[in-house]
Amino acid sequence: MSEHAVRFLPDDVAVAVTGGESLLVAAAKAGIPVRGSCGGKGACGKCRMRVREGRVAAAGYGKLTGEEISAGWVLSCQSVPESDVVAEVPPESRLSAHRVEQADGVVADSDPCREEICEPLLRRVEVACPPPTLDDARDDAARLLAAVRQVTGTDAVDLEPAALRDLPAVLRAHDWRVGALLAEGNCRSTVAAVDGPGEGPLYGLAVDIGTTTVVVHLVELTGRTTVGTRGSYNQQAVYGDDVISRIIHATETPSGRDDLQKAVLATINDLTVQLLRQAGLQPADVRVAVCAGNTTMTHLFLGIDPAYIRLEPYTPAVNDPPPVRAGDLGLDIHPGAWVHCLPGIASYVGGDITAGVLFTGMARQNPLTLFVDIGTNGEMVLGNSEWLVACSCSAGPAFEGSGVKFGMRAMEGAIERVTVSPGGGLVEVATVGNTAPVGICGSGLIDLLGALRRAGVIDRSGQFAAEPDTPRVREGEEGREFVLVWGHAAGRGTDITVSEAEIKNLIRAKGAVFAGIRTMLKMVGLPVEAIERIIIAGGFGRYINIKEAIAIGLLPDLPIEKYSYVGNSSVKGARQVLLSRRARDEVRQVAGRMTYLELSVGNDFFDEFVSALFLPHTDMTLFPSVQD
Amino acid sequence: MSEHAVRFLPDDVAVAVTGGESLLVAAAKAGIPVRGSCGGKGACGKCRMRVREGRVAAAGYGKLTGEEISAGWVLSCQSVPESDVVAEVPPESRLSAHRVEQADGVVADSDPCREEICEPLLRRVEVACPPPTLDDARDDAARLLAAVRQVTGTDAVDLEPAALRDLPAVLRAHDWRVGALLAEGNCRSTVAAVDGPGEGPLYGLAVDIGTTTVVVHLVELTGRTTVGTRGSYNQQAVYGDDVISRIIHATETPSGRDDLQKAVLATINDLTVQLLRQAGLQPADVRVAVCAGNTTMTHLFLGIDPAYIRLEPYTPAVNDPPPVRAGDLGLDIHPGAWVHCLPGIASYVGGDITAGVLFTGMARQNPLTLFVDIGTNGEMVLGNSEWLVACSCSAGPAFEGSGVKFGMRAMEGAIERVTVSPGGGLVEVATVGNTAPVGICGSGLIDLLGALRRAGVIDRSGQFAAEPDTPRVREGEEGREFVLVWGHAAGRGTDITVSEAEIKNLIRAKGAVFAGIRTMLKMVGLPVEAIERIIIAGGFGRYINIKEAIAIGLLPDLPIEKYSYVGNSSVKGARQVLLSRRARDEVRQVAGRMTYLELSVGNDFFDEFVSALFLPHTDMTLFPSVQD
Repeated sequence: MSEHAVRFLPDDVAVAVTGGESLLVAAAKAGIPVRGSCGGKGACGKCRMRVREGRVAAAGYGKLTGEEISAGWVLSCQSVPESDVVAEVPPESRLSAHRVEQADGVVADSDPCREEICEPLLRRVEVACPPPTLDDARDDAARLLAAVRQVTGTDAVDLEPAALRDLPAVLRAHDWRVGALLAEGNCRSTVAAVDGPGEGPLYGLAVDIGTTTVVVHLVELTGRTTVGTRGSYNQQAVYGDDVISRIIHATETPSGRDDLQKAVLATINDLTVQLLRQAGLQPADVRVAVCAGNTTMTHLFLGIDPAYIRLEPYTPAVNDPPPVRAGDLGLDIHPGAWVHCLPGIASYVGGDITAGVLFTGMARQNPLTLFVDIGTNGEMVLGNSEWLVACSCSAGPAFEGSGVKFGMRAMEGAIERVTVSPGGGLVEVATVGNTAPVGICGSGLIDLLGALRRAGVIDRSGQFAAEPDTPRVREGEEGREFVLVWGHAAGRGTDITVSEAEIKNLIRAKGAVFAGIRTMLKMVGLPVEAIERIIIAGGFGRYINIKEAIAIGLLPDLPIEKYSYVGNSSVKGARQVLLSRRARDEVRQVAGRMTYLELSVGNDFFDEFVSALFLPHTDMTLFPSVQD
Repeated sequence: MSEHAVRFLPDDVAVAVTGGESLLVAAAKAGIPVRGSCGGKGACGKCRMRVREGRVAAAGYGKLTGEEISAGWVLSCQSVPESDVVAEVPPESRLSAHRVEQADGVVADSDPCREEICEPLLRRVEVACPPPTLDDARDDAARLLAAVRQVTGTDAVDLEPAALRDLPAVLRAHDWRVGALLAEGNCRSTVAAVDGPGEGPLYGLAVDIGTTTVVVHLVELTGRTTVGTRGSYNQQAVYGDDVISRIIHATETPSGRDDLQKAVLATINDLTVQLLRQAGLQPADVRVAVCAGNTTMTHLFLGIDPAYIRLEPYTPAVNDPPPVRAGDLGLDIHPGAWVHCLPGIASYVGGDITAGVLFTGMARQNPLTLFVDIGTNGEMVLGNSEWLVACSCSAGPAFEGSGVKFGMRAMEGAIERVTVSPGGGLVEVATVGNTAPVGICGSGLIDLLGALRRAGVIDRSGQFAAEPDTPRVREGEEGREFVLVWGHAAGRGTDITVSEAEIKNLIRAKGAVFAGIRTMLKMVGLPVEAIERIIIAGGFGRYINIKEAIAIGLLPDLPIEKYSYVGNSSVKGARQVLLSRRARDEVRQVAGRMTYLELSVGNDFFDEFVSALFLPHTDMTLFPSVQD
């Protein structure tokens, strides 16, 4: 097989590719993360590169204009080098730093240990053992365990083999008064290490493994302080934007499952290294981790076959995986550390959602609460201390910029606010970082839908007016489109547009969320007005304009004061589990109590979905506050 | 530091040594196992080598004759190369193949599964799971575990993370009818792997980790067949013959504990490789191991600090260590296999003894039984289904050839039978392999004591007659000695002798065993005659002449038909534990029920010991069958 060198600009990094490997694969090898929203199928057009030197066998030109093609632009996923190649990777094709919701939120970050004795997943128990005599000949391990069992009040404690090795010397060096590091394992606790009394702090990680972004909190367990937080995009993104593309890569590429596990581990390890460096700590100082992710993310993190998550009847390999050792997994913390993944309940309602329900407290409170997490997927939970119903719809990627040609994440240059003058002649946009616009992110898309509707550019079904008043509506390469920003004002030099097909796609996404909420309400026989509060979670929720989300019919038309924003409740729930026994018990109860509503069963959801394919809805009585 | 090359003959293997390393250490590096009975202290004289070329700085010449010194003989442990050296290692200085008791014994090898359902530590459970539907959305793991729990009747079953990875594909490939490999772990069972229905046999190891010898049985668990057995010397022997020398090496040499763990693992791994090769199997085919060893051996095998085993009040780090993963330990079988060590009860009554008690059945039967295991140590257990007492005395090494200049193990050329004519003029010996005698082994030493006494060469206290009738009694370099074989008839060309000091040493060893037995009887208030049967265990017991052992007062004077020989009950007990749940429950009960009698506490043992320093005893009424 022939081998060619590929050099990427402006990074000036070169790698060798062998027969058949695309520029996208080469970029991944070179450590340059390129967007692969559609999973390398040539469908999304987000992985564009410009070939500066050399020849490539390229396909997928339909996504490019004639001008672009002449200028050397290619879809990197569809382009295979035929000689040594120099390729330029533009900023908009890169997965790079974008706003990552690490912890903020207006719901108070409740301390899980406020009310009761705090028992972190790893804690130090100070014990004093009676020294052995000829009359009391018990072994060292028995002495220590008896003392630990007495202090903790439980018999379900064992000694880890690793803690046994130097136990005799440690006990005697400290005159039989020692600190035992007690780690909760699967069914029993184990003494993971023994050292002198009162020595040093204890560290753990709380991790949110999102499809799009990963957030790591480094927590000191005894003082319950967050030492640092870091977030970044999930390096799996080069294999596709959504869970379905990732599952396809994992199951249809020979090394696919391994690729994805390595990518997410590299993401977490990179963030952890940064946190440790900042805190002056070593990997071995971190002795426990709790991860919350959707069911697919949890499978891929653990290297478990996710194939059947996407095939009817949508069966995960496991909802509540057993803890694994960091060393067995490849997580760069203490190799003996237990890594716990929070339990999910179904293929599309995972540990990130049980973590969120835990964190909001809705499962132990009376008010009827709707929890909505619009991330890459859209998951909703309805209920209170008496019952809980959950469902999921694949609404998310559209609002994260997937399936929209100029869609992008909330990074510099992303349009996040849009106003449109009546008739559509004038458009004002605000971008992240106040720089020249290069694309549009989720909150911008919500604004755009509402604004186009109010301006009369589109009708309630998302169709462009038959005779538009403005040259911004024109015939594009894929049907009619609206020019949001003219090329001369755009950061990339070409017009930023949104097509009718894309608008319809967004309406389907918002309709799915609302229809899911309505189907849950119908299941329990309650009207929309019965909802006493709505909690919005997830990074995306941070930036949306609730009034606009109601105006397009994405969220129920309830008084704005019933809405609150909880931030990244997945990592916050994971942090509670790390710190509190009560939280561990509760998250398990939540997973056990929650009824999963499979929307594809029966006609209820489909009927609701069809009714929701209007702006805001076919039944306007559901949106009394929305002016026609 | 200067570096010299050392070449060993006749092996023709060369290694480099750096400043201060002895020829003994060099031989270990070269993979040549040399006897180091005293642990490299220059005290035993067993590690002799002959320097053929080069210079060594040597000490310890007191153990060598003038002739030997002129001929180039040195104690390798005391000789440090000062130039490149060529050294010859004679056969008698080598640890090499000697008779290893792998399984024989006259007590029937009872099948532990005869009476009840056999549940090996690893077994296959055939299950059929209902396929998932949209109405039964449980995950694959929950389906499998529910089926396994139903079949086994226990909820304490988890899935190993490794078994989860490919579970979805396995379940569907076999149409939801699969075999789950169920491994008993610490507190719960785990499904270690899942494959098609009824596939393949399952293998485990039963291992006896003796101070002197190591025996491995490869067992097919489902059919309960022993596929093969292998035994060899414990490669730790280069660091000393007895547990005390090993503990000293482990605690006083920086890499000592690691050296000893590596040596025993290498021993077991070598034997296992041979067994696997013979059976056409791979290491990963073996998925469980049960090891029985004395407390020191168990500590060293697991890499646990043994320091306090030899220091009053003789406290082990652990009597009942938790199972460990083969991969974590360095045992070359399936890395995920659990390695179980049988529980001991004290520093000098370990898992080899609970294994023996288990195997004999004495703990569930009525007859009062004395179990005697004379290996490198001497351990005794007295009792029945109602009570059990155990004690230990360090009698062993003397009978394994340690502390006797011409002592050796039962290998080719070892004298194993001795008769002496009245007065001592004529001596007849029989050797292992019927070759020219080079030394004397344990059974030979027992014969020798009795024969010398009956011939009138020594008196009842072990003293040579004041005016001996034979030139065989002479003044040697270390006091008076008896020439057992003249040099012209001996395999090594020099006279084979036994000194008065060595005879006294043997009498102390036999006295300690008998005094231990008497002290146990005294504790429970019973006379010697109350013992209904005596079971002799251990490789050494195989070859001793019971009548001679009674005659010298090593064993109680009871009718010969009350004696039986059980063989290597340690490995046989380990095999039962591998195969049967009943055995696992019983060995744990035995460890819990057995009362350990510390002989060094109080005066009872000391008084008995002093009384036993005669042949057979000061109280001849205890030995009515022994003619004066």
